[in-house]
Amino acid sequence: MNNLIKKALIRPAGALQILSYKEAQQLCDQTDQGLNDVFRQCSLAVLNTGTKDDNGLALLEAHPDFQIRVYIKGRGLQMEIENAPENAFVNGVMIEGLQEHLTAVIRDLIYARNEIMDSGEFNLSTSFGITNAIFHLARNASLMKPDCVPNIVTCWGGHSITLEEYKYTKQTGYHLGLRKLDICTGCGPGAMKGPMKGAVLGHGKQRYTKGRFIGLTEPGIIAAEAPNAIVNELTIMPDIEKRLEAFMRLGHGIIIFPGGAGTMEEILYLLSVLMHPKNEDIPLPVVLTAPKSGKAYFDAVIEFIEYTLGKEATDKLTLLIGHPEEAADFIQHGIQEVKIHRKANSDAYYFNWNLHIPFELQQPFNPTHESVSQLRLHKEQPAHELASHLRCVFSAIVAGNVKTEGIAQIEKHGPFQIKGDREIMSRMDKLLKQFIEQRRMKLGTDNYEPCYNIISD
Amino acid sequence: MNNLIKKALIRPAGALQILSYKEAQQLCDQTDQGLNDVFRQCSLAVLNTGTKDDNGLALLEAHPDFQIRVYIKGRGLQMEIENAPENAFVNGVMIEGLQEHLTAVIRDLIYARNEIMDSGEFNLSTSFGITNAIFHLARNASLMKPDCVPNIVTCWGGHSITLEEYKYTKQTGYHLGLRKLDICTGCGPGAMKGPMKGAVLGHGKQRYTKGRFIGLTEPGIIAAEAPNAIVNELTIMPDIEKRLEAFMRLGHGIIIFPGGAGTMEEILYLLSVLMHPKNEDIPLPVVLTAPKSGKAYFDAVIEFIEYTLGKEATDKLTLLIGHPEEAADFIQHGIQEVKIHRKANSDAYYFNWNLHIPFELQQPFNPTHESVSQLRLHKEQPAHELASHLRCVFSAIVAGNVKTEGIAQIEKHGPFQIKGDREIMSRMDKLLKQFIEQRRMKLGTDNYEPCYNIISD
Amino acid sequence: MNNLIKKALIRPAGALQILSYKEAQQLCDQTDQGLNDVFRQCSLAVLNTGTKDDNGLALLEAHPDFQIRVYIKGRGLQMEIENAPENAFVNGVMIEGLQEHLTAVIRDLIYARNEIMDSGEFNLSTSFGITNAIFHLARNASLMKPDCVPNIVTCWGGHSITLEEYKYTKQTGYHLGLRKLDICTGCGPGAMKGPMKGAVLGHGKQRYTKGRFIGLTEPGIIAAEAPNAIVNELTIMPDIEKRLEAFMRLGHGIIIFPGGAGTMEEILYLLSVLMHPKNEDIPLPVVLTAPKSGKAYFDAVIEFIEYTLGKEATDKLTLLIGHPEEAADFIQHGIQEVKIHRKANSDAYYFNWNLHIPFELQQPFNPTHESVSQLRLHKEQPAHELASHLRCVFSAIVAGNVKTEGIAQIEKHGPFQIKGDREIMSRMDKLLKQFIEQRRMKLGTDNYEPCYNIISD
Amino acid sequence: MNNLIKKALIRPAGALQILSYKEAQQLCDQTDQGLNDVFRQCSLAVLNTGTKDDNGLALLEAHPDFQIRVYIKGRGLQMEIENAPENAFVNGVMIEGLQEHLTAVIRDLIYARNEIMDSGEFNLSTSFGITNAIFHLARNASLMKPDCVPNIVTCWGGHSITLEEYKYTKQTGYHLGLRKLDICTGCGPGAMKGPMKGAVLGHGKQRYTKGRFIGLTEPGIIAAEAPNAIVNELTIMPDIEKRLEAFMRLGHGIIIFPGGAGTMEEILYLLSVLMHPKNEDIPLPVVLTAPKSGKAYFDAVIEFIEYTLGKEATDKLTLLIGHPEEAADFIQHGIQEVKIHRKANSDAYYFNWNLHIPFELQQPFNPTHESVSQLRLHKEQPAHELASHLRCVFSAIVAGNVKTEGIAQIEKHGPFQIKGDREIMSRMDKLLKQFIEQRRMKLGTDNYEPCYNIISD
Repeated sequence: MNNLIKKALIRPAGALQILSYKEAQQLCDQTDQGLNDVFRQCSLAVLNTGTKDDNGLALLEAHPDFQIRVYIKGRGLQMEIENAPENAFVNGVMIEGLQEHLTAVIRDLIYARNEIMDSGEFNLSTSFGITNAIFHLARNASLMKPDCVPNIVTCWGGHSITLEEYKYTKQTGYHLGLRKLDICTGCGPGAMKGPMKGAVLGHGKQRYTKGRFIGLTEPGIIAAEAPNAIVNELTIMPDIEKRLEAFMRLGHGIIIFPGGAGTMEEILYLLSVLMHPKNEDIPLPVVLTAPKSGKAYFDAVIEFIEYTLGKEATDKLTLLIGHPEEAADFIQHGIQEVKIHRKANSDAYYFNWNLHIPFELQQPFNPTHESVSQLRLHKEQPAHELASHLRCVFSAIVAGNVKTEGIAQIEKHGPFQIKGDREIMSRMDKLLKQFIEQRRMKLGTDNYEPCYNIISD
Repeated sequence: MNNLIKKALIRPAGALQILSYKEAQQLCDQTDQGLNDVFRQCSLAVLNTGTKDDNGLALLEAHPDFQIRVYIKGRGLQMEIENAPENAFVNGVMIEGLQEHLTAVIRDLIYARNEIMDSGEFNLSTSFGITNAIFHLARNASLMKPDCVPNIVTCWGGHSITLEEYKYTKQTGYHLGLRKLDICTGCGPGAMKGPMKGAVLGHGKQRYTKGRFIGLTEPGIIAAEAPNAIVNELTIMPDIEKRLEAFMRLGHGIIIFPGGAGTMEEILYLLSVLMHPKNEDIPLPVVLTAPKSGKAYFDAVIEFIEYTLGKEATDKLTLLIGHPEEAADFIQHGIQEVKIHRKANSDAYYFNWNLHIPFELQQPFNPTHESVSQLRLHKEQPAHELASHLRCVFSAIVAGNVKTEGIAQIEKHGPFQIKGDREIMSRMDKLLKQFIEQRRMKLGTDNYEPCYNIISD
Repeated sequence: MNNLIKKALIRPAGALQILSYKEAQQLCDQTDQGLNDVFRQCSLAVLNTGTKDDNGLALLEAHPDFQIRVYIKGRGLQMEIENAPENAFVNGVMIEGLQEHLTAVIRDLIYARNEIMDSGEFNLSTSFGITNAIFHLARNASLMKPDCVPNIVTCWGGHSITLEEYKYTKQTGYHLGLRKLDICTGCGPGAMKGPMKGAVLGHGKQRYTKGRFIGLTEPGIIAAEAPNAIVNELTIMPDIEKRLEAFMRLGHGIIIFPGGAGTMEEILYLLSVLMHPKNEDIPLPVVLTAPKSGKAYFDAVIEFIEYTLGKEATDKLTLLIGHPEEAADFIQHGIQEVKIHRKANSDAYYFNWNLHIPFELQQPFNPTHESVSQLRLHKEQPAHELASHLRCVFSAIVAGNVKTEGIAQIEKHGPFQIKGDREIMSRMDKLLKQFIEQRRMKLGTDNYEPCYNIISD
Repeated sequence: MNNLIKKALIRPAGALQILSYKEAQQLCDQTDQGLNDVFRQCSLAVLNTGTKDDNGLALLEAHPDFQIRVYIKGRGLQMEIENAPENAFVNGVMIEGLQEHLTAVIRDLIYARNEIMDSGEFNLSTSFGITNAIFHLARNASLMKPDCVPNIVTCWGGHSITLEEYKYTKQTGYHLGLRKLDICTGCGPGAMKGPMKGAVLGHGKQRYTKGRFIGLTEPGIIAAEAPNAIVNELTIMPDIEKRLEAFMRLGHGIIIFPGGAGTMEEILYLLSVLMHPKNEDIPLPVVLTAPKSGKAYFDAVIEFIEYTLGKEATDKLTLLIGHPEEAADFIQHGIQEVKIHRKANSDAYYFNWNLHIPFELQQPFNPTHESVSQLRLHKEQPAHELASHLRCVFSAIVAGNVKTEGIAQIEKHGPFQIKGDREIMSRMDKLLKQFIEQRRMKLGTDNYEPCYNIISD
């Protein structure tokens, strides 16, 4: 186990250390009005980087004495940290990347609370209000750079993948880096870390010193997917839907590596946006790529999508197996088209304002037996809506597999009842069985016990 | 007269060009809800730099066709400007310092409107609320730098001074610059520009490339005192009282050069703060300095203050005549003590939170015959309160001399009736006569017609 | 095979592109007076980065049409390159790291020729003259930075090592990088590349953006050990002895990873310097480190050294097996002592002037049957001299195994006759047999045929 | 008088502090082989900046105890200075610009001695050898920047001019600075300092932070014309002819302000180069500019040149009186043509290799009664040769007026006998009388006693 550093005083470097006394108090306030709880939880996750422990709750329970407080001092801000994991330090000095992450946590928690939630400036009951809030959060986090051309590649995929797949994500990242492309992922290990590690080397060879490694996370998953210290622009979005939207509006191209049910959920979210009629003309290159050993996963995924959502859906996805350099080339050329398109339309390069994301996709889907039973899993609706309902199915499966609340519900009410069109259900059953066979359903489980029943209408 | 540039498209450099569409609209909105009026007025003032025209209203009237609009484009923001003064351009390209000023105008107007006025986050009916708002405005303008030691010198003095006095402000600035001190003034010509010009040379010799030239202004005076392009951190405070408070909380030392009634008003404001019992222990070096030819001004000022506010008041002010280098040395040593004091008390270097500024000083004094008649000009009150009332007298005189509204009132109701303790009135009469003699009362006037009567109780 | 880029025009970035016309001519001059031959050979090696081909002669033969020329143009220098390996390019643009390497080649070839060899300023027939020339070469290559504290770690070891050993060099490099230490190696793959790749990640996590990856090579081996593009300070020393001396004078600590006979040669060179009585008091931390699987190599090496050169020799070497982080810590602490020592003695941090390297170690050892037969392999001499003679034995074995000239001699005259003290010979026999068993003698050879006979006196 | 700082230890910042022990010794060596004499003399001049004392010999005599020594220490080089003028320090710390000047002195003295004079690499008895040496000196001083477009304006003119002329040079510099042009002068006060001071402000307004203020001097005049600390690229050329050549080869345009006989000498040097048939097609904009009060000087100069050298000569010179902004515009456009010309001819931007400077112009003219008597002052020769001979006349007059050796000769042998064509002599007489009338002949002299006789053939 990770040893603890009894007490550390940190004066974080960087531009973010000017707080008012009121803000410093908020961060130390342990009441419900205060931010200390979420601050403590996010900070612990940040400092726990590199350990295998991917259970957020367990993390807090394992560090009952971890404390973090914030003071205003002469040159800036000072943090006082007690009982922090030793891994975050080198010879008693906190790794600078992690110091930056702590200041990012502070910045985002305060801004989200004071300027977004409490200020009344944003009408969060409208689609535009939510998008505008995301823009302001991203701007406050300096995620948007003026005077830059499009070059951000959003990378998705599982956080626990095979070693061969992991190496493949590194190779792909290397070729992206050689093309001076920047990487944006959801933080954490696996397919979120590999492309960054690879890109660091590619950037280095190109003497590209301004490489950006954007990590988008949210308080609920930061503990499970702690940001790697390579991440040099960490941002904590208020919730998972805003995080997904941020991926779509900030990225200029998307690469999807193999994963499990969670990655499937992301692919379906993506399709429910890209297939929306209002988004027909908006270019966004999307590549599914894996080493040869990961081909089976994408074959199963593509087969399922082709049947349920049609060729129009698979046309949005380019599959490249065993070709990391070609994947990087494809994305680079696609991003070039994104740039041409935005220039022609006088759109901003740094934020994809024009992408239409329906209000219901911006709302959290809370998987319960009730909400699952109401999903419309048939073809009597536009494909992008079916994509959205299918996405909820996978969201429920992920919850039933690994999330505290989901597991509790399954224990109480039995498996989710997934009900719909006969052929769709049959295909889904096949797909899920393939996931089980490929051991992508739940980590470290030999005999996976499904948390769902597939039922035809 | 300044010729006009028919149309110019500007893509301002720098970090401030990420606007949301909503914000861009606000800036173009010419209705009362919008910001275009104040934006147009401030922008015109910025672009009119270097001309002698110091009349804001006249400026707008002289440029009826001046237009400025803002668009969101690929790499960032684009401004479209019509009929701008040619002086702001070199061979058709806008001077970069002025481009920066325009982006500063945008930044401050939007922030003040959306985050300070409309957000409901700040309780502006309390002293702390106002101070906190000033902190947030300053932070948003990046006026506060972490990891810096105290080195900001606030310079006050007249905007129309003699050539010899102007040269003296340059010399003083040169010696401040050699000491790697930064300059903060109210923008505009005279004593606000001289120290900056001098410091540029001093910084250059010291290879101090991060020199800061902070200009604090507000929409009501920016036209009359347009920022010189040397200013590299322009900030527009919402009103004159917040600007005065910002000078006091951001500066680590204060230099006062000769001026007229306005400078006298500033000195009295300063004393009404520094003499407040709660501020007794807060160090802040203050120097009054001038060339030998300016000695008479300060002699008269000091004599008046010594009688009315006592030796305790003059002890706060150090007079140095004909010694620019010593003035710089005095300030440098005083700032060193400020640093020691703040370090010892764990106070922030970048914002003087601890200075107590009473709520009434934070409120605008609106000079009318009514409000002037209610001033308490006698010694039966604490000295810092008398200082505050005396300050209002000079505020009224400035208004009666040069401000549109003040002049109108004098025309309608006759001179202000300044009434108080016999001896104080006698001293004031003497002081004002000296100002008239020294031709410091009103620019370009041979026969000054007083806008006041001095009346003893 | 690597495809070719028919023609490329390169305007290398960076500070090194100001050449005189005369210098540009020298680089294009294909006569014996000119530098085009060696320029072409080194450039081809640089551009061949990343390929497995480690045979310099073969490389030139494989690219008969490769041409490189240099022109003076408006903003600087332009290179015209024909038939360059495609690997050096990404989508038709040369990798910037390699552009830098080409300018480094130009810089060093011209300086070595004009300022060192032809200028008559350096007396290369004295030890001081040679050291002074190395100093000037290093200074001209900006290898020595003022205002830096000691932090350069020289890493040695084999260029063809096992995958596990390679990973171990990366891990060690990672921990060096986390400590903000810089890496200096001999260029090429294996133990020369691993520490750099690891350190890139460590530096990144520490936001240490000025990481130095120094590659020291020489024209004779650059083709066999092409610099990886991570190397951001490439320097070409005129010959192998100056390169060895540069390693010793520039590095503040030395890490040795497993290798074969060549690494053994380096260890013995190191000992022949460190054991010299004049160097007794000069601190220089040296670590031998490997994963557990590499323990056998170092055990054999240490056993041999302990017998032949005594405990005094092994005391200079610290063995750490399976502990990359501890190895980094050991070096970091050792370097701290180096700093203290130099500060106390007012010595330069950037060049170890005080290290005594005897003139004979600065001269090339040319292995022939004659010169080998004259080696004094017995204990009737100071240990540091025996170390020097033993080093020559391994130099001969390396030559007989892989160098063109050495192989030719063996073919003509049979194996080298290595003759000396009975016990030393017996120990050497054992050591070499262990190398053969561990397959470290010659790459890709199942049945190694020794190029030597061990003969006792 | 300037007080003295008893002892100061300086660790100069910047890239130039890596010396070998041998070089440090050279600088401390007070024998004829050493450099301490010239080092001490140049350093004293550098540190005497800002004083009026313009007599080099007097300077050394006034500071008999001034000492400077150089040591190699841990992070770099340390200077130990005794009895330095206090003006060079602010509160005991040497002004950083002057620290840089000291390192520039070291750099240039060592390079000129070791690499130019002693190395035998340059054949200084040929024109090309001299030009090549100047190139290497300039490169070593980093005067030539790759990746820059032409923007260096060489400014000439008197070092003691009227206040109005001085202000005019500042205004011109200001407009050059607004155009992001860099300034190169001969160091010292007057027309050498004004343009730099002005350009600092212009650069500041344009946020042009890389402004270059190149000062070219030589050991013989550095004491009389000490570099102002604004100079941020000081270079000491070995002698006055190399300095003149450097002005011509580095500058992309030339501005001449009023001066006296010395400025006339420079104008004639310029014409003897530009009128050379080989330079016919080489563009180089030249402006003569002055405030209205300086018109008489240039009128006299132009009239003389037009008669002696013809309209072809005056065509090379553009006269602009009272128009600093137009002068800046003229130069900017001229430089644009220089760029186009060099690009079209694939010439380097940073060094005007193609300008032909005849070998005799590269040689010092040593004014004696003998050499003056041999000047050919008639029209039976090409105009550029006559220009060259006329230049020598003014060189002799300058020497006879102010240089130690020249004055001694005049005292011994009487006035120089300037003999030539009747009409030329008549014109010269008139010109010199105008100089005397305008009090431009010799500073602070009411009754100028000519050091020459004008004699017609």
